Amino acid sequence: MAQIAYQFLSKFKTKNLLYQQFIIELVGTFILIVLIDNAVATYTFGHPSDHFAIATTAGVGLYIAVVFGATVSAGHVNPVVTFALATLRKCPWKSVPVYFAGQFIGGFAATVVSFANQRLAIVARSGLNGTFPSKTASLFMSNPGIRPVDHETVILDQVLCVGILMFAIMVLIDGSNNHNSKSATPFGLLFVLIAVILAFGSNAGAAINPARDLPARLFGFMIGLGDMWSDMFWLTASTIGTFLGAVVGAWTYYLTVEIHRINDNADLRNGSANDLNLTELRTTLDKLEALVDAEKGLKSHTKLLD
Amino acid sequence: MAQIAYQFLSKFKTKNLLYQQFIIELVGTFILIVLIDNAVATYTFGHPSDHFAIATTAGVGLYIAVVFGATVSAGHVNPVVTFALATLRKCPWKSVPVYFAGQFIGGFAATVVSFANQRLAIVARSGLNGTFPSKTASLFMSNPGIRPVDHETVILDQVLCVGILMFAIMVLIDGSNNHNSKSATPFGLLFVLIAVILAFGSNAGAAINPARDLPARLFGFMIGLGDMWSDMFWLTASTIGTFLGAVVGAWTYYLTVEIHRINDNADLRNGSANDLNLTELRTTLDKLEALVDAEKGLKSHTKLLD
Amino acid sequence: MAQIAYQFLSKFKTKNLLYQQFIIELVGTFILIVLIDNAVATYTFGHPSDHFAIATTAGVGLYIAVVFGATVSAGHVNPVVTFALATLRKCPWKSVPVYFAGQFIGGFAATVVSFANQRLAIVARSGLNGTFPSKTASLFMSNPGIRPVDHETVILDQVLCVGILMFAIMVLIDGSNNHNSKSATPFGLLFVLIAVILAFGSNAGAAINPARDLPARLFGFMIGLGDMWSDMFWLTASTIGTFLGAVVGAWTYYLTVEIHRINDNADLRNGSANDLNLTELRTTLDKLEALVDAEKGLKSHTKLLD
Amino acid sequence: MAQIAYQFLSKFKTKNLLYQQFIIELVGTFILIVLIDNAVATYTFGHPSDHFAIATTAGVGLYIAVVFGATVSAGHVNPVVTFALATLRKCPWKSVPVYFAGQFIGGFAATVVSFANQRLAIVARSGLNGTFPSKTASLFMSNPGIRPVDHETVILDQVLCVGILMFAIMVLIDGSNNHNSKSATPFGLLFVLIAVILAFGSNAGAAINPARDLPARLFGFMIGLGDMWSDMFWLTASTIGTFLGAVVGAWTYYLTVEIHRINDNADLRNGSANDLNLTELRTTLDKLEALVDAEKGLKSHTKLLD
Repeated sequence: MAQIAYQFLSKFKTKNLLYQQFIIELVGTFILIVLIDNAVATYTFGHPSDHFAIATTAGVGLYIAVVFGATVSAGHVNPVVTFALATLRKCPWKSVPVYFAGQFIGGFAATVVSFANQRLAIVARSGLNGTFPSKTASLFMSNPGIRPVDHETVILDQVLCVGILMFAIMVLIDGSNNHNSKSATPFGLLFVLIAVILAFGSNAGAAINPARDLPARLFGFMIGLGDMWSDMFWLTASTIGTFLGAVVGAWTYYLTVEIHRINDNADLRNGSANDLNLTELRTTLDKLEALVDAEKGLKSHTKLLD
Repeated sequence: MAQIAYQFLSKFKTKNLLYQQFIIELVGTFILIVLIDNAVATYTFGHPSDHFAIATTAGVGLYIAVVFGATVSAGHVNPVVTFALATLRKCPWKSVPVYFAGQFIGGFAATVVSFANQRLAIVARSGLNGTFPSKTASLFMSNPGIRPVDHETVILDQVLCVGILMFAIMVLIDGSNNHNSKSATPFGLLFVLIAVILAFGSNAGAAINPARDLPARLFGFMIGLGDMWSDMFWLTASTIGTFLGAVVGAWTYYLTVEIHRINDNADLRNGSANDLNLTELRTTLDKLEALVDAEKGLKSHTKLLD
Repeated sequence: MAQIAYQFLSKFKTKNLLYQQFIIELVGTFILIVLIDNAVATYTFGHPSDHFAIATTAGVGLYIAVVFGATVSAGHVNPVVTFALATLRKCPWKSVPVYFAGQFIGGFAATVVSFANQRLAIVARSGLNGTFPSKTASLFMSNPGIRPVDHETVILDQVLCVGILMFAIMVLIDGSNNHNSKSATPFGLLFVLIAVILAFGSNAGAAINPARDLPARLFGFMIGLGDMWSDMFWLTASTIGTFLGAVVGAWTYYLTVEIHRINDNADLRNGSANDLNLTELRTTLDKLEALVDAEKGLKSHTKLLD
Repeated sequence: MAQIAYQFLSKFKTKNLLYQQFIIELVGTFILIVLIDNAVATYTFGHPSDHFAIATTAGVGLYIAVVFGATVSAGHVNPVVTFALATLRKCPWKSVPVYFAGQFIGGFAATVVSFANQRLAIVARSGLNGTFPSKTASLFMSNPGIRPVDHETVILDQVLCVGILMFAIMVLIDGSNNHNSKSATPFGLLFVLIAVILAFGSNAGAAINPARDLPARLFGFMIGLGDMWSDMFWLTASTIGTFLGAVVGAWTYYLTVEIHRINDNADLRNGSANDLNLTELRTTLDKLEALVDAEKGLKSHTKLLD
């Protein structure tokens, strides 16, 4: 009977890379934003306010998404990361709409589910009518607090915040930085996201990810909780600031480091610095690695079918 | 004389894998839950409330248990993890009762020892008669706080909480995710447990592990501290929610990632993508690895007998 | 001239292992306890109380000491660790007095220096006369807070606390636990020390390390700050509890895991499970590793003499 | 068109190592100090005070800078680190002015940008006239709090603080300490910086980095915010204490560990301990490693030009 179940399930198998990337960005973004939304609600309604706890939850959400997506979509789980990598040809432009669709749909689903999970507490503490945009909305949207800010400041703030995050992503995915263990990058991203949320938590509420803010506003609008759009922070902080920041961060790294490395590599390829038959050695190593990975996958599947 | 002592001790040696797994799940669960229970008591009676400190202690407890059990039982230390892995044939069904026994007995022992250690503070602050179910019990059981919740919400909450935890376990133990250092997985689990405790701390008190909640209620019942069962959260949050969540999380990963990989591996096995004699290479590598591990174990034992 | 300076310095070189171990335990313990003492003072006088910050500082101090001592003394920096390892023949008994001397002298020096650094704040807030044993002493000694405790409880508490720490040390230094990167163990110890300080912070003040408590009491006694000894917690919590806990923790691991591995290794050594000429391969690998290490050391020294 | 853009950009390429080091120290220091300054402002104006959050942000900033600079400048991002390494010939003296220039210019730019980002909150809460040196200045400068301190104490405090940091840097960059994964060192530095900021946060405000304090005072002086210099803490805490501490920490490690290793290495070089043709093996390994790095860099560039 289990055999039959597995045969039924095998109909869902696909080898279409774009479809797999869509699913993985959707699920990864869903997990990231469910974690953040529930952490924000927990430290608003359930426990004393703890910005560090929220930032840590977000960092771990990114960590899970990055390891989850590693070999298929790379786990961007944020449209601005996808866009910035595309401007540097590190993600093909034709994949960008697929990634965006997965990320925004995942973000929308995460908002709905988190709202359902926190509904009783929301109703008990703040009620629903009309208050969603002010208090309740802050659970799911990215918006400034009560400190004085203007739109120029939140754009600058998010350019710095997302710029440093994107710069660090470039640093950590660059295999030439001696950060050589494949498992180090996801942990590095965990800490970097914590840090930028901590450092830029006040001006623009650490907007960072449009796939969290925009779907939450859309959902609030759909269930009739009032005006979600007129504060324009969805445009300045969550959209202009984050996209601009990601591009600035990515290109800063490209111009300060990557561009200077090109000729050196060409020299190496010409064999001027190495006497071994490098191509041959490299090919052997690649095959060995692929073999080990394949065996691992096979073994875990074989166990499944036993 | 020491020689004699070692000869005496060697009578306790066993090569029975199930017995070893029982012992390791028992000790691992004991350590995990002693750490959590004493942390909860510390931040209830001794220090200002600190949800982050409790979550960190739990994460580290899981880390210790996972490294401790790595080569024998894999260190599940939670019945829902064992069950979910069994539904995907990643843990044999015949081991499940053995794991459960170890986990629940370890959890019960941890409750008793933690109660003994915190007894004076419990008596001084809240007394024992009748108050155990409300205040004292919150030290050792998983239960909702004062915020409004219903049984549907705590089930949804625990499906999300344990679902994300179990999904992340699947991600991190899958050798194909480029997370290639064996020491990375235990650290990843440390952070993931912190995150789900932080994010889902309010609705159901981050129930997550039935081996903590159920033995604590049984112990309270045994020492006559009042009604432990009528709130039914032991059934909805700690049992239905956690088991359901673990299965949902594990299967989400299986259906979004693992299932799509099967044919690719078969292709690799047929040699279509690799020219080297891979089987031979793989065998050599495996033997080499086994040798190094064996030598290590032997060396530490040899030192012991010097 | 620099040449002359280096020649002068080279007179301090020694190849005496015990002397090197003494120095390294002394410096490592000094750093660990300076960090803890100043963190405790900072979160008593300078910043709001933050138990998590103190625990983190201690964890990082242990991390530094362990990497620092890795190849010479293994960086125990705590007499109870040295003692427990000796009972399992993982540290030679003849080294024990040398380690103890380094640890207690390092702890005493750390107390004196930390007292000097925090002197102005101590005088301003609590004065010196007579108050050292109550308020001031809590900066440098390990003592229970105001919650009700008795000597039986603090011994149980420290057996659990140090027992889990020592058990985790055994788990993490055992090369057979698949925790295969040499850099993982120090990070693991960092988190484990944080966790046991958090979980056992209230009953006995996380005594853990006699090289912190006893020298601080001796120093308070020497500078005439009143009675340091009559509360007897230095004996029950800091000495009996910690030594007993370390031995219990270490032997629990030995009896649950290590002892069962012995025959397996013998089987492997007899070649029954491996066809390769393992001894030869192993020898080659060891030499290769030694070479790489030697080259690294040589290179950094060569750079120094340029 | 993209081709043309890349050709234009390629004019900025340089192979001048000192120029590259200047840029990398500038950008690395900028990121480190933008993170710290905005975190301090966030936990002063926007969120409840959280020393742990500030320390974590600083630790992650150092982590990013160290991985970023790894292969070009090593990411010192602090003049006292550069200076102390130079005294041990681990950084050439001729590079020191270049590093200093990058660090101080990066620090100045970070102050200006952070001030712009936090300007509205600063004006709203404390106003600008005359108050910058007291309240506002504490956002960007390193200065003692209200606790009683004198100049001798802040110097001792910073010698301990920076001494332990620099000692740990020496420990972690020494390839002989069995801390063998290249990705472990940046994570280690992340935690070490957190710990010294936590432990030494009160006496001298964890001055540590003159590239943060001095440019901030210069900027406050330039925009006319009053007297920045007469408290003399810029000289005692931020300059004398930090430079002295870095030298003491670096030389403590050299004298306790490195110096004793010299002869052993010479013995190894003479072949007395190894039978293999080590030089040959080593050369092969080096070439293999260089090849893999080069291939990686090439591959990422090739993708860029596709």
